[in-house]
Amino acid sequence: MSIAPRAMVVDLYHHVPMGDVTVAAYVLYHSFGYFPANSVHVAVVDPGVGSDRRVLMAQAGDHLFVAPDNGLLTLVLERIGGVRIFTLKRWEFTLPKLSSTFHGRDVFAPLGAWLARGVPMPMLGRAVDDPVLLELPCPCWEEGRLVGEVLWVDPFGNLVTNVEREMLEDRTVGEVLVAGKSLPWASCYAQLERGQLGAIWNSWDLLEVFANGGSAREILGVGPGTSVELVVA
Amino acid sequence: MSIAPRAMVVDLYHHVPMGDVTVAAYVLYHSFGYFPANSVHVAVVDPGVGSDRRVLMAQAGDHLFVAPDNGLLTLVLERIGGVRIFTLKRWEFTLPKLSSTFHGRDVFAPLGAWLARGVPMPMLGRAVDDPVLLELPCPCWEEGRLVGEVLWVDPFGNLVTNVEREMLEDRTVGEVLVAGKSLPWASCYAQLERGQLGAIWNSWDLLEVFANGGSAREILGVGPGTSVELVVA
Amino acid sequence: MSIAPRAMVVDLYHHVPMGDVTVAAYVLYHSFGYFPANSVHVAVVDPGVGSDRRVLMAQAGDHLFVAPDNGLLTLVLERIGGVRIFTLKRWEFTLPKLSSTFHGRDVFAPLGAWLARGVPMPMLGRAVDDPVLLELPCPCWEEGRLVGEVLWVDPFGNLVTNVEREMLEDRTVGEVLVAGKSLPWASCYAQLERGQLGAIWNSWDLLEVFANGGSAREILGVGPGTSVELVVA
Repeated sequence: MSIAPRAMVVDLYHHVPMGDVTVAAYVLYHSFGYFPANSVHVAVVDPGVGSDRRVLMAQAGDHLFVAPDNGLLTLVLERIGGVRIFTLKRWEFTLPKLSSTFHGRDVFAPLGAWLARGVPMPMLGRAVDDPVLLELPCPCWEEGRLVGEVLWVDPFGNLVTNVEREMLEDRTVGEVLVAGKSLPWASCYAQLERGQLGAIWNSWDLLEVFANGGSAREILGVGPGTSVELVVA
Repeated sequence: MSIAPRAMVVDLYHHVPMGDVTVAAYVLYHSFGYFPANSVHVAVVDPGVGSDRRVLMAQAGDHLFVAPDNGLLTLVLERIGGVRIFTLKRWEFTLPKLSSTFHGRDVFAPLGAWLARGVPMPMLGRAVDDPVLLELPCPCWEEGRLVGEVLWVDPFGNLVTNVEREMLEDRTVGEVLVAGKSLPWASCYAQLERGQLGAIWNSWDLLEVFANGGSAREILGVGPGTSVELVVA
Repeated sequence: MSIAPRAMVVDLYHHVPMGDVTVAAYVLYHSFGYFPANSVHVAVVDPGVGSDRRVLMAQAGDHLFVAPDNGLLTLVLERIGGVRIFTLKRWEFTLPKLSSTFHGRDVFAPLGAWLARGVPMPMLGRAVDDPVLLELPCPCWEEGRLVGEVLWVDPFGNLVTNVEREMLEDRTVGEVLVAGKSLPWASCYAQLERGQLGAIWNSWDLLEVFANGGSAREILGVGPGTSVELVVA
């Protein structure tokens, strides 16, 4: 508010499980494109706050990013071509006093504000080509089934997996196997009976296990890391 | 942000119980009038997302509304005269790609933005007169007592009921009976002892059962649907 | 939005434990200075809503405050010199109808908006010099150890105490004793093993007990009021 008083601030999401950089990487990658050109995306899930982990800035097309160098930018960097990455060197652009536990306030927000003001990234830091990248689990094909895993449980109790729609290419989805149960495919939640379990392509085109009007997590009793198999028809 | 970059966005409420269209209808009806004229109210509690449920726009006086056609507008439509209602027909005003699970992002927010920009509703859809209306439970008089029910439990543990202040007309409130207990009437929370149960007209002029400094839900162990009787003096 | 349509609104914090005026006083005192000059800070933790508790406005340097007269301003008033305090007298600057349970909407927000519009405090109320002040527990020295207590548990499960960094003067921090355990001092969370308990100066320079990547509250099973001892080296 002090550095860039005319910037419009949008709170995108506060429900990433605490400290879960992988989930934050997914949220950021699947959300940033819905914002206007020249948006600055300040993403802070930062269990290494106060350590010597670097502070990254990145430019991907018309979008700018500020994040700790802990893998949060993994999907943005790996899936978008020609991303330029810088590490912060000019610490006079942060707040003058840095705490040990809250760099969202002391470092990332001020830096995002300066970028929103138009300060060029090369003026703030040094180009780097070795950002920390997460080794994300990757679904694989096994005997005609695509086998992935649950990445996280959203606040509705839906199980979001790493199985992506485009991995299917032109195959047709069939049943989904999870926790010993076979679940039908659905084109919308309300297609199933109330309380019935099913699978759907969610709003990020990831396979999601849900219960219509209920919590798949509570019904199935499983969470992140659980194997999910998609049988193609 | 792309369609109506100058619009001020206010996050009104995120604590409606998941999928509870009735509670959302109450929140919307009792809140919209506190916003300035020409506000656009985008209300999305949408368990039918991705199905063929219609997308409604409505104009009530100086206020515009966007919501799924699932009853969310019931109180606005039934209690305000002369509301004009339209169903979306021009899908080129949504995002180009519609997901199956998140029309808040893909449909309702863009539509609200176009309305905020001044696009007239008749240009976006067709007038309809058959919106889905909820059959809301209605308090009734029984032997000098007004008998209603708990609609929902707010985040403080207060039990909000469907008993409305104006139903009393010029009668004086007396004790309130709920879960076999008789509770005193209060004019403010702090009037009672800490932890004591009571009843009050809440900020929407609905009868609310509370515990001063505590959670009525935890103390009474009841929730939505529980009968509440107001004895008039 | 109606009174001060050009005001930028920032939602600072919604995780104060319900009705906990002490914690709210700490959040307000440690946060307001990060906002620009001429900010109006509307702070509402108000268990006395609807009673005859007064409505305060205060000016501390370039910052204005609106809050109930219940001690919420204690730290601002006690630690900042020359604060001017007024109690609301001109009730025509609130909403015309006051509810019994939600003066954040009916009183404090409209008042903050009028202050943001530039209406001077003396026009809205009368100067007072007897605001309600909380008697906050104060850490004390006992045999070379600084003994304080847990004020609150943040959403990560960290235990925030009333032991302040400046109380140490030039002494060096050593171990921390809490719930019969001795915890090491840390300069950042990630310095400890995953799940290990430690203590750190938090972003407000208060002693905080944490577990790296976990919840100190769950591991230790203690909460507000628990004694914490800092042994100086």
